[in-house]
Amino acid sequence: MNNKNPELHIVEPIQWKEDHIRIIDQTFLPGREIYQDIFEVGKVWEAIRSLRVRGAPAIGIAAAYGVYLGAKDLPEIEIVDLHSEIQRICEYLSSARPTAVNLQWALDQALSLSDSMQGEPAEKITSALLDLARDLHENDKQICADIGIAGQELIPDNAAIITHCNTGSLATGKYGTALSVIYHAHLKGKKIHVWVDETRPLLQGSRLTAWELEKTGIDYHIIADSMAGWVMKSSKPDLVIVGTDRVAANGDVANKIGTYSLAVLAKHHGIPFYVAAPKSSIDLNTPTGDDIPIEERQDDELRVIGDQVTAPEKAPVYNPAFDITPHELVDAFITEKGIIRPDYTASLKQI
Amino acid sequence: MNNKNPELHIVEPIQWKEDHIRIIDQTFLPGREIYQDIFEVGKVWEAIRSLRVRGAPAIGIAAAYGVYLGAKDLPEIEIVDLHSEIQRICEYLSSARPTAVNLQWALDQALSLSDSMQGEPAEKITSALLDLARDLHENDKQICADIGIAGQELIPDNAAIITHCNTGSLATGKYGTALSVIYHAHLKGKKIHVWVDETRPLLQGSRLTAWELEKTGIDYHIIADSMAGWVMKSSKPDLVIVGTDRVAANGDVANKIGTYSLAVLAKHHGIPFYVAAPKSSIDLNTPTGDDIPIEERQDDELRVIGDQVTAPEKAPVYNPAFDITPHELVDAFITEKGIIRPDYTASLKQI
Repeated sequence: MNNKNPELHIVEPIQWKEDHIRIIDQTFLPGREIYQDIFEVGKVWEAIRSLRVRGAPAIGIAAAYGVYLGAKDLPEIEIVDLHSEIQRICEYLSSARPTAVNLQWALDQALSLSDSMQGEPAEKITSALLDLARDLHENDKQICADIGIAGQELIPDNAAIITHCNTGSLATGKYGTALSVIYHAHLKGKKIHVWVDETRPLLQGSRLTAWELEKTGIDYHIIADSMAGWVMKSSKPDLVIVGTDRVAANGDVANKIGTYSLAVLAKHHGIPFYVAAPKSSIDLNTPTGDDIPIEERQDDELRVIGDQVTAPEKAPVYNPAFDITPHELVDAFITEKGIIRPDYTASLKQI
Repeated sequence: MNNKNPELHIVEPIQWKEDHIRIIDQTFLPGREIYQDIFEVGKVWEAIRSLRVRGAPAIGIAAAYGVYLGAKDLPEIEIVDLHSEIQRICEYLSSARPTAVNLQWALDQALSLSDSMQGEPAEKITSALLDLARDLHENDKQICADIGIAGQELIPDNAAIITHCNTGSLATGKYGTALSVIYHAHLKGKKIHVWVDETRPLLQGSRLTAWELEKTGIDYHIIADSMAGWVMKSSKPDLVIVGTDRVAANGDVANKIGTYSLAVLAKHHGIPFYVAAPKSSIDLNTPTGDDIPIEERQDDELRVIGDQVTAPEKAPVYNPAFDITPHELVDAFITEKGIIRPDYTASLKQI
């Protein structure tokens, strides 16, 4: 680790390189660290489709660059057709992962920019599309950094922290959400120890979070998810921080399966439970957690790991990807606008 | 499933076949169901060493047969040497898994039997060793059956039950401990649904418990360990039953890692938490759970699954094999002598 500049070791999963993007191919992690240079929209589509880029904010950023790369490569055509071509590019990219919200959100912005510039020279439009992608990218990094900085008042020196899933740089432009708070404690010189839930079934904790922490030299141990309770009892960590996929208007939190168990265990042990959440994940149109649908994923995630058969071939499996943690179990939200405390129905609306 | 005789489908991991034992090779489960006929002591040693037979009671039974097979094969020798040869066989078998308590306990019984018969004809001694092995075997089945029957007063019809690890036939002579309660509910015609914790890191739940339930036609779903809390909240199961490796005099329970989290989650949701325990696992010489050492196992159990790398190569890992559940979280013990309720310091001593 380079102690003089620990910032250097915080990964950026997507980088703009003058005329192309360079991504770290997450399908090879943690075994191999392979970067891929992407010059054209078809490869962006493939990278999103194949989970080489993952994490909702990171997907949105990659897609925005994808629109630019696609538009730039269009043959010289009648200006009147340019907008409909860009529309086609957006539809194409959208099909890579049709359910990712940030993907559609980024494409919508590209599309409305193109719409507002109809009649302008093609060069000016493509250049504006690149500016948009770079803005989204920088903006996401800034939001993540602000979350990390805002969280510092909750992190004592020598803190032992339990976290779940991957909420780090790899899922965003840089820093991540819950992991950003940990990174910024480290950058401020606080000594931190992280208990990394491996996060079954897809092991984002042991595969990705451990890999990120390893690079930055932050102390950690991987644990099986079932060990978190025993760690709370036997070594009394200071706090739990997790990320979120959606926060309802009353403060109920949808997040990776296992978050709810962790929140109940934290409450039992008197350990504060915090949720790092960019403002964009607070959905005031969803009144409570009961209104958030829970995606169930395929059975084989719990029957096979790589080539290894881990259960009877057709064993029945219950595999929800998310759970809902009721707001009573959340001690605070950490947002880019600062710390949000109960009563959440009022405080979440305010920001 | 043969509805006329569901008993037929309950596995016996070790069977005595006139002149040899037949074991189900657990290293191939759940992928393949392979039986191995073992005629000599060297193969018994290998089967225990390689975890083809696993589970403390099952290992003890296999070892007792092993002593007989070894003694039977001795060349005709001076009777005076027979006891020391049997002693050598016991030492040899003991080395297969030096820490398994039941293994040593079974071998000690064989050895003291041989000791008490010194001077008798070799044929009579070997025949007594076979009788001992068969007695231990039948006795273990009976204890497991009695636990299963004793537990019935706690199991309503249509019960949904969460369980952890493998506490079934595969670990014992037949039926198991916690799983015996489930089998006997099924044998009595109760409708049961089991939530099977996969039980990281070694997946005894998804690999072995699911395989056993599949054979008997008992309804179940595999879940990741981190899903148990969400299952309790969203579908309100009736009870949790687990096994145990050791019960302290005050009722504190050592069991597979993850048991403690499950007990805390059950308490939070008002779901009864039961521990199935043969009398032999109650250790009145251990005052409390604090006096039970916790074995930590090798790091790679959380870094590699089969050929699949699941974490950075040298990632630090915390991998306790067991945890301690304080007696306050245990609603009752299910033993072969009946249900034991608090105050455990008194009630455990009584049985």
